[in-house]
Amino acid sequence: GERAMNVLIPLAEGVEEIEAVVVVDVLRRAGIAVTTAAVGSERIVAASRGVTLVADTLWRDVDTGAFDALVLPGGGPGTERLKADKRVLEAVAEFDARGKTVAAICAAPTVLAAAGVLEGRAATCYPGCEKDLKGTRYTAKGPVVSDKHILTSQGPGTSFAFALALVERLAGKTTADKVAAGLLYRAG
Amino acid sequence: GERAMNVLIPLAEGVEEIEAVVVVDVLRRAGIAVTTAAVGSERIVAASRGVTLVADTLWRDVDTGAFDALVLPGGGPGTERLKADKRVLEAVAEFDARGKTVAAICAAPTVLAAAGVLEGRAATCYPGCEKDLKGTRYTAKGPVVSDKHILTSQGPGTSFAFALALVERLAGKTTADKVAAGLLYRAG
Repeated sequence: GERAMNVLIPLAEGVEEIEAVVVVDVLRRAGIAVTTAAVGSERIVAASRGVTLVADTLWRDVDTGAFDALVLPGGGPGTERLKADKRVLEAVAEFDARGKTVAAICAAPTVLAAAGVLEGRAATCYPGCEKDLKGTRYTAKGPVVSDKHILTSQGPGTSFAFALALVERLAGKTTADKVAAGLLYRAG
Repeated sequence: GERAMNVLIPLAEGVEEIEAVVVVDVLRRAGIAVTTAAVGSERIVAASRGVTLVADTLWRDVDTGAFDALVLPGGGPGTERLKADKRVLEAVAEFDARGKTVAAICAAPTVLAAAGVLEGRAATCYPGCEKDLKGTRYTAKGPVVSDKHILTSQGPGTSFAFALALVERLAGKTTADKVAAGLLYRAG
């Protein structure tokens, strides 16, 4: 069979914990390999509502070129930290240039905009964050928007739809449907 | 104003990370105080799909009588560990006896049954786990079932409905609606 897909997820202090954990859990249920990488100096990451997560590794120890997809969870303070991190912005641009899947939810689509990859593209985000999506064809329609290899979504309540859209893209619709059934997930 | 509600959540190795994190995050968004307590000997808890969580404290350091509600996340191996822990079973029985809110999702309603508090009561759980709900009026209707002060729910995909039902019970419908709107959550 084909090699399993390999997804990289940066975690910054202030990340929205639902958005991070739903994506990691749902992708792993689909048999997709996921690596969470803390962008700070230690693996322990304090998320936005006081949940403490331990990342799998540190971003500085990651070979970004070895991954098939890059997924950015949101949360206001977490997003600001990702946007201020040149390594993350460079990775976003590199994945985009190679036509690899780049995805972001909630406030994090603004990181894709800051990296210059949303220009002229359709995208969505948490309501209000679109002010930082200049040049993007912003839409509030639907919980997930895809434009070629770029997926964006809106917030914690759309995390399952976002994660399952990623599964469908990386592992196919049959797998996505099977995972959704196991989760007992019904689209809102 | 009234004292903020105070919720205790035991975390065991193999807990379903979505179910744990959605409840913690959503309750805290509602202004409810939440304490996660690891039932093992250290605060680091390996969840069911490889997410590592750090609990706020250890169960052995907790005064269970100081809490208004007890919420059990599921996950197969995590549930088995909760069910094997006499302290957790005793706490379930104690909260029930005092008429305090006791809630469980996925496989975890079987812990409530093991503690003897579901006898003759309506409850739901992850499909298949009802074999361990003997004496319970099991129903698969609806993502959340409430019977007096006992709330049960079905799985990761019903975590938001479960958490928001808890918010409605502990902090009122206005707060629950406001939190749901902030999450961008729509019922499935």
